[in-house]
Amino acid sequence: MIPRTMRALRKIDASHGFALQEVPVPEIGPSDVLIRVRKVGICGTDAQIYQWNHWAQRRVKPPMTIGHEFMGEVAATGAAVKMARVGDRVCAEGHISCGVCFLCRTGEAHICEHVKIIGVDTNGSFADYIAMPESNVWPLDPAIPDAWAAVFDPLGNAVHTVMAAHVSAKSVVITGVGSIGLMAIPVARAAGAASVYAVDVNPAKLALAVSVGADATFDARDPNVIAEIVQRTGGVGADVLLEMSGAASAIDAGLAMVRNGGRAALLGIPSDDVNLNLAERIIFKGLTVLGINGRKMFETWYQTETLVKSGRVDLRPIITHDLPFERFADAFNLMRSGEAAKIVMEVSTT
Amino acid sequence: MIPRTMRALRKIDASHGFALQEVPVPEIGPSDVLIRVRKVGICGTDAQIYQWNHWAQRRVKPPMTIGHEFMGEVAATGAAVKMARVGDRVCAEGHISCGVCFLCRTGEAHICEHVKIIGVDTNGSFADYIAMPESNVWPLDPAIPDAWAAVFDPLGNAVHTVMAAHVSAKSVVITGVGSIGLMAIPVARAAGAASVYAVDVNPAKLALAVSVGADATFDARDPNVIAEIVQRTGGVGADVLLEMSGAASAIDAGLAMVRNGGRAALLGIPSDDVNLNLAERIIFKGLTVLGINGRKMFETWYQTETLVKSGRVDLRPIITHDLPFERFADAFNLMRSGEAAKIVMEVSTT
Amino acid sequence: MIPRTMRALRKIDASHGFALQEVPVPEIGPSDVLIRVRKVGICGTDAQIYQWNHWAQRRVKPPMTIGHEFMGEVAATGAAVKMARVGDRVCAEGHISCGVCFLCRTGEAHICEHVKIIGVDTNGSFADYIAMPESNVWPLDPAIPDAWAAVFDPLGNAVHTVMAAHVSAKSVVITGVGSIGLMAIPVARAAGAASVYAVDVNPAKLALAVSVGADATFDARDPNVIAEIVQRTGGVGADVLLEMSGAASAIDAGLAMVRNGGRAALLGIPSDDVNLNLAERIIFKGLTVLGINGRKMFETWYQTETLVKSGRVDLRPIITHDLPFERFADAFNLMRSGEAAKIVMEVSTT
Amino acid sequence: MIPRTMRALRKIDASHGFALQEVPVPEIGPSDVLIRVRKVGICGTDAQIYQWNHWAQRRVKPPMTIGHEFMGEVAATGAAVKMARVGDRVCAEGHISCGVCFLCRTGEAHICEHVKIIGVDTNGSFADYIAMPESNVWPLDPAIPDAWAAVFDPLGNAVHTVMAAHVSAKSVVITGVGSIGLMAIPVARAAGAASVYAVDVNPAKLALAVSVGADATFDARDPNVIAEIVQRTGGVGADVLLEMSGAASAIDAGLAMVRNGGRAALLGIPSDDVNLNLAERIIFKGLTVLGINGRKMFETWYQTETLVKSGRVDLRPIITHDLPFERFADAFNLMRSGEAAKIVMEVSTT
Repeated sequence: MIPRTMRALRKIDASHGFALQEVPVPEIGPSDVLIRVRKVGICGTDAQIYQWNHWAQRRVKPPMTIGHEFMGEVAATGAAVKMARVGDRVCAEGHISCGVCFLCRTGEAHICEHVKIIGVDTNGSFADYIAMPESNVWPLDPAIPDAWAAVFDPLGNAVHTVMAAHVSAKSVVITGVGSIGLMAIPVARAAGAASVYAVDVNPAKLALAVSVGADATFDARDPNVIAEIVQRTGGVGADVLLEMSGAASAIDAGLAMVRNGGRAALLGIPSDDVNLNLAERIIFKGLTVLGINGRKMFETWYQTETLVKSGRVDLRPIITHDLPFERFADAFNLMRSGEAAKIVMEVSTT
Repeated sequence: MIPRTMRALRKIDASHGFALQEVPVPEIGPSDVLIRVRKVGICGTDAQIYQWNHWAQRRVKPPMTIGHEFMGEVAATGAAVKMARVGDRVCAEGHISCGVCFLCRTGEAHICEHVKIIGVDTNGSFADYIAMPESNVWPLDPAIPDAWAAVFDPLGNAVHTVMAAHVSAKSVVITGVGSIGLMAIPVARAAGAASVYAVDVNPAKLALAVSVGADATFDARDPNVIAEIVQRTGGVGADVLLEMSGAASAIDAGLAMVRNGGRAALLGIPSDDVNLNLAERIIFKGLTVLGINGRKMFETWYQTETLVKSGRVDLRPIITHDLPFERFADAFNLMRSGEAAKIVMEVSTT
Repeated sequence: MIPRTMRALRKIDASHGFALQEVPVPEIGPSDVLIRVRKVGICGTDAQIYQWNHWAQRRVKPPMTIGHEFMGEVAATGAAVKMARVGDRVCAEGHISCGVCFLCRTGEAHICEHVKIIGVDTNGSFADYIAMPESNVWPLDPAIPDAWAAVFDPLGNAVHTVMAAHVSAKSVVITGVGSIGLMAIPVARAAGAASVYAVDVNPAKLALAVSVGADATFDARDPNVIAEIVQRTGGVGADVLLEMSGAASAIDAGLAMVRNGGRAALLGIPSDDVNLNLAERIIFKGLTVLGINGRKMFETWYQTETLVKSGRVDLRPIITHDLPFERFADAFNLMRSGEAAKIVMEVSTT
Repeated sequence: MIPRTMRALRKIDASHGFALQEVPVPEIGPSDVLIRVRKVGICGTDAQIYQWNHWAQRRVKPPMTIGHEFMGEVAATGAAVKMARVGDRVCAEGHISCGVCFLCRTGEAHICEHVKIIGVDTNGSFADYIAMPESNVWPLDPAIPDAWAAVFDPLGNAVHTVMAAHVSAKSVVITGVGSIGLMAIPVARAAGAASVYAVDVNPAKLALAVSVGADATFDARDPNVIAEIVQRTGGVGADVLLEMSGAASAIDAGLAMVRNGGRAALLGIPSDDVNLNLAERIIFKGLTVLGINGRKMFETWYQTETLVKSGRVDLRPIITHDLPFERFADAFNLMRSGEAAKIVMEVSTT
């Protein structure tokens, strides 16, 4: 039986923090699915909303249930739902696209201009239940553990970036090994990267990078890092850059590490404008620079499932914490401290 | 008979201007070809060396014969030359690549890191004779007029940019219609662009843009230009940007005019760093940004020949001046005034 | 007011011909649209069903309303329809895909294995009304004439083939200039083909090919045709083959006309197995051979609209007949005689 | 000191077998390199010439020194040689392309129409010395063992096929696991294949396939093999086919195993025409079929080096025999028996 109310972690007003409140269980339309949430993942975006930074102040309209990474079980289905059944174990794409624009009709729904993101623009997943359009739902293979399924969204970001960058038999530099950067390491190796180098300022993250398969790691503040990467890549520079920090200095240095004719995929989001020597960094080098956003629906999801099921992507070292839902404040403190890589929370056990 | 000395337009010291001097005819190595120069084109780069701006001061080591756009006739061949014969009508790729590096051996010689550019790094084409490696020589189809052949180098820049941008059945915006931007208009149309919009600040160039096939032109200073381009392209923005100005404001506005998932090819070279909202202009949009340098050897040359021979690219409106070699000072004054689009000079008539 | 019954051209049993019958107007589901049909196009497939050949006997289960090319006006909409409104002028994609398989979820719905084709697997468009899922409906730009809109399906086949073949600045051979092959000529030119050569056995079709833009045409039975195409394409062969005949001899000769490293797009459907020298025709040459099916949903549709609206694709010479619906028997006789290129029929004038 | 004569394994007339003869050491031109051969590999092509089958009778003009797979040391260099030095450890691309045709000038020298293959069209590598154009020479990384270097040519075939097929995160079927098919297994895994299935009729080769990384193997004569592959690949079929048998039945079955929209790379060379249901196997499925020939110069060579140096490609199980040069007759008998996978021979130890 679906209850009438549920717990939800919410931004209740324009101030710091979240509140765990009792709210009505969402209603579903004819094409929607109601999902009983089991596990959720915490994203840097959630932390920004928690801290109520400038970006959050401009984008989020409280009150709003937060969270977009989750997995759970189908609890109810609308009348026009075709495939999903009550009891199905599922996760979901958190970008709800319009379905009728040029981009949606040409296989580019992940960059639909009318996209709404759950937990940002509309009520999210840090709750006992969430309503989702059936077309966003992803049925889970039984081989995939709950905690991994809960973070298919950021894992999908890593997969989308890696696959767009064409890493097969290539040398790859990753600038920024937060949780998505860390995920990108085994993903790149599984996708055929010949070598993976990680650059960051956090020694703990660099140590984790090695444990998930980086060939070598570099402190971004080391003045020789560009020269060392170039030296390790046949004297010409890396074939591929995966930029996952959003830091202006990392973008500049990362582009300098790529060889002429190389490929740079930018996923990290700079908080401000970036001052760039376009002539030296991109034009003369004949680089291909790719802006990466979200996950391809659903090409990225199939690839993610394939990579996980191949056994070549192991998230255990990256999911550093698995906390009960009630300890959300501890979780956000761990996020801020930089101690955690990826945190998941258990919302329900049934 | 090849004389012992010849005229050459030279940068003789670190000051403004050029001097027309009598110098020895260059010697050729076993794999080289000596070319009697008939017609040359003047590039913005030549004008920068003439004016001795900061870039020129850093790059060029006087004394040096200037010029890289030219056509002429083979006058002598080295012992190991395979195909070229005395009397052949030819032009040549002006980027001399090393031939043995990773990029040269993988079909990317145009971005070889050891490239030398004639007229910049080594003696150039504004002279009665020039020595070139046979592998840089391009035999000219009889259907191609001398003046057009003399500007195959910048026309090749336009072709490389257009072909890299994939314009077939697409809407295209060109920011900056100097001579290469103007050439890109008929090239884009011939290559299948469904519509071509030109943006610049120079009304005379915009008028020329219409005469060579632009569907509409816009003053870059018009605050509504982004909105108008978006409105003319189905409300989503242009499929493709060809950036040919190098101006920071044009790069920013140009990227704003491209639709999500679109493609931007950057050929124009900014003189300084560019301050860019990477998040909004590239990352969230999922853009593909291509740095463009030189011409693909020799894919671009074949494409250029094909496009010219198809009759769909007419350079007559763009080659606004054809002056005798001796009037080089007038030519550079015309360049500076912005009156000219493309200037060619006749070095010899035989 | 929507009547209860309507006229429909039907295959009523396993024999030659069609019957015009009065049948119930189709009912629509919540996500469907009912369309009042105005104009239809006749496809070779319809003629095969008319003649009841082997393919038709295996595939079609009478009784069935025939036809898949059409345009008309929205007459009613289901409760869950989002965008379509009564009175909208529309045509529609005739391949109804399942929407939930791997191919449908990765932008390849045109090759969904569960596809149903209207007029073949389910009731079709040669009737006063047809029901279609809203997601198959294509809103028509007012600039597109009714007769052209009625043949967007085969025009889309031509566009899909041409765009997959990458014709920009390339030489193109088309083998087989039935109606789709003829459409492919202006489409290829508009998409940037540098030259287009047509090969067929029907002199009238070859004459039409010239009138819609072919550079030269060849009788397929001429023993010198391969040599002539090679000679006209720089001695190496055409860059691209568009195979639109389905004839084994044309496939073999067409592949022989393509240069090493070229691209061949196969749309024509051979009625039997084809005996092919794979080593000489494909493997040693390093060809890329593309099987083409249907139209990409809806990338091809956007491209088709763009090409038609650019004014560079003129269907008037190709639509050779526009007959009233009642004269369907004459239409199928014209089809069989080879006199007609494309025939459209007017089902209603309102 | 280079001697005046040397041993060479030669086809001396139009009959079965080879003869080991004393012949003059080849002379080198100004751009050539003389290489002291250390190790050679035996290819199926060599065995065909040995057996003097129909293909060999048509193509090879005795007397001719045989062999195209080899490695050794530079013994002398022509006057115009730029990089190679006496003593360099090298192998070489055995396809000598013309260097001046359209394909050679556009990065497609591997499919140059004027190509000469050493050991087939011109004297080969089964000798103490061989002369090669410097531009064909590949300097060997010290990390690569002699026996592996000797088979870089067929390993390059495997790499070219795998890289053209885009295997990253894909399911891959290989039909035919002779030596190149076997090499393709670890290459595909290293390049990112998510799963690799091998199909052959030889149980010993299938056992080797497992030992080098195949997920599962299938007897090609098993009537359920297509169904099993489809079942293991999500019910849709494999993403990629690598056809390395040249057998008509394997080509047909292999294409049937590929999913709609998949990619098939054909390397195996059928001895006769192949009867193919193009409609069902290629056209309706929307397949991309790639003819594969040789190795890309030198993109494939760099990739091969990268893959070997990454440690993810181990040739030890595949090089089943390493014999002294004098035992060539034993080697060709082993080839014919099907006992051997790859055989190398040691020509000299210095």
